[in-house]
Amino acid sequence: MSRYMSPKYSDLKPYVPGEQPRERSYIKLNTNESPFPPSPRAQEYAQKAAQSLQLYSDPDCTEITKKIAELYGMKPTQVLFGNGSDEVLFLAFMCFCDANTPAVFPDITYGFYKVFAQFLSVPYTQIPLQDDFTVNPQEYRNTGKTVFIANPNAPTGHYLGLDAIEEIVKSNPDNVVVIDEAYIDFGGQSAVSLIDRYDNLLVTQTFSKSRSLAGGRLGMIFGNEALIADLRMAKYSINPYNVNSMTMAAGLGALLDEEYTRENCKKIVENRQCTTMELKKLGFTVLNSNTNFILAGHHRISGADLYKALKEKGILVRYFDTPRLKPFVRITIGTRQEMESLTSAVCKILEEYI
Amino acid sequence: MSRYMSPKYSDLKPYVPGEQPRERSYIKLNTNESPFPPSPRAQEYAQKAAQSLQLYSDPDCTEITKKIAELYGMKPTQVLFGNGSDEVLFLAFMCFCDANTPAVFPDITYGFYKVFAQFLSVPYTQIPLQDDFTVNPQEYRNTGKTVFIANPNAPTGHYLGLDAIEEIVKSNPDNVVVIDEAYIDFGGQSAVSLIDRYDNLLVTQTFSKSRSLAGGRLGMIFGNEALIADLRMAKYSINPYNVNSMTMAAGLGALLDEEYTRENCKKIVENRQCTTMELKKLGFTVLNSNTNFILAGHHRISGADLYKALKEKGILVRYFDTPRLKPFVRITIGTRQEMESLTSAVCKILEEYI
Repeated sequence: MSRYMSPKYSDLKPYVPGEQPRERSYIKLNTNESPFPPSPRAQEYAQKAAQSLQLYSDPDCTEITKKIAELYGMKPTQVLFGNGSDEVLFLAFMCFCDANTPAVFPDITYGFYKVFAQFLSVPYTQIPLQDDFTVNPQEYRNTGKTVFIANPNAPTGHYLGLDAIEEIVKSNPDNVVVIDEAYIDFGGQSAVSLIDRYDNLLVTQTFSKSRSLAGGRLGMIFGNEALIADLRMAKYSINPYNVNSMTMAAGLGALLDEEYTRENCKKIVENRQCTTMELKKLGFTVLNSNTNFILAGHHRISGADLYKALKEKGILVRYFDTPRLKPFVRITIGTRQEMESLTSAVCKILEEYI
Repeated sequence: MSRYMSPKYSDLKPYVPGEQPRERSYIKLNTNESPFPPSPRAQEYAQKAAQSLQLYSDPDCTEITKKIAELYGMKPTQVLFGNGSDEVLFLAFMCFCDANTPAVFPDITYGFYKVFAQFLSVPYTQIPLQDDFTVNPQEYRNTGKTVFIANPNAPTGHYLGLDAIEEIVKSNPDNVVVIDEAYIDFGGQSAVSLIDRYDNLLVTQTFSKSRSLAGGRLGMIFGNEALIADLRMAKYSINPYNVNSMTMAAGLGALLDEEYTRENCKKIVENRQCTTMELKKLGFTVLNSNTNFILAGHHRISGADLYKALKEKGILVRYFDTPRLKPFVRITIGTRQEMESLTSAVCKILEEYI
């Protein structure tokens, strides 16, 4: 830190994104990207938008907001788009947490909640996952805090049913509950269906995973009109033109190709089931996942060692250097061929590993 | 505000962007956009990037960072890209201002400085522009505050010479001085040449104006390595993937077409001089401008009335409802043809106006 930096950041530990190596080509199963390109219409719309970038993007994201509201059965005033769901989650932290309203989230979850809280000097509590790496919904009742739950959770893949989510929302009437549904399209019912009934519920989703637009940066947050109006005010106080024209166009194109998204999700789910079975045959513990990744560990090799051995063989996965996640690697589900390469590499590594 | 919103925002007045009407087609001279499309290479690169959006964008913006460092004669560690220069300015407010380190900026300048300060609960001082709407550099010496100066300033167009800027930087050794050079390519010497000599200087620029990428959202901040490292840490704590792949590619394409940018700037400057002369002939007061806009006022008609009359004739300009800016409209410099339409419309309006 330079001597000019505000001392409030002295203990900050920024988020570390998964590696994006450019020096050689890997089978990339480390950052939960889709193995499929964006839908043809998403590409085409973005390419057209590239021709008139001299004009500012629409700060209200009018067209895509209208379209998603129509698809999801809500009013346009119940949704706000951001530069990735990271941005809308950050807005939610800024709006609904402060020194007097702490945040609460699981100890093992999306790493950004903790980083946001630390960056914004928001007090926070982390509730340990249960022994089987699941979230116990009972522990999130009457928290007196702003609740953040990734559902399905990352990097565990565990999904909490809609009833459990509703119980959490209902039992925290004086606090906002944010359900981060980055992976919902790979299995599970969205809590979006509850936003009309609870004025304290926010749901975030992203175009990065199921819609193959990670590099475009597009996320959104759903909720009742008053909460969304708060977030919009924050957006207009920070970066009204937060979503660029090409990404907005790509997102609209993707929404017009929902069948393509559904087909891709179906393939990912099939590949996930298949890979889970194969790894279990090799003696792996694989957590039940409703996402486009699996957390898998083998008693004979640590996560870090398996990561290294796979990297040598040209396959990137992710490991986490924390006590409970040490035995595991997180493997993004790719194409069938990529997953076959993975399982055969793992097989060889286990044979060679002393 | 909902009852869940943090009370610290109770007095907030968000920024109001210039109108972006979609219901009819206007000659758009209201948001300082370029009348020229992005360079052919910028378009082509963005369009190629649209094909592989399933992968996350490069959080380090490696290629474009390397290229701009080469062009501007600095190290890649002396620059950080953002989702528009609004984002890097916001990062600077977050990093280098707090309850104990207030901000200072002119009373008439880019509206976001005040909004950022209010949003972040940063105390701030506004120094009135002089009677001729210029910044008096003497008033920014030894401030004990983080200084924000738009140079050239908006919406006045006034440019402060490099010597004056250097004096400000030198006389505030214990505080960061941020020079916002959104319009520098239309006339003036950049303070970027000073970053090696002063460890408290930051300079922001944007691809929105001279490089015709307003809708792509790309801005950057230059400074010594320690300040840039602080800002990078903040970025990695908020939104590492803040710049999407298409925009990064478009920006790189634009940097490879610098001749195109220079030619466009030259045309804008010519059209600005021409329009200024025409309006002066009609009795307008037109402030000297080093930007792609002019601030012009006529003793017979208020800014608001001129705005309305021009809008009826299909031309959008911007007016500001504040005591000192009331007599003026801000007119973005467009193509020669657009400026001819403007002057002939203004001429008719003055004839008809009682």
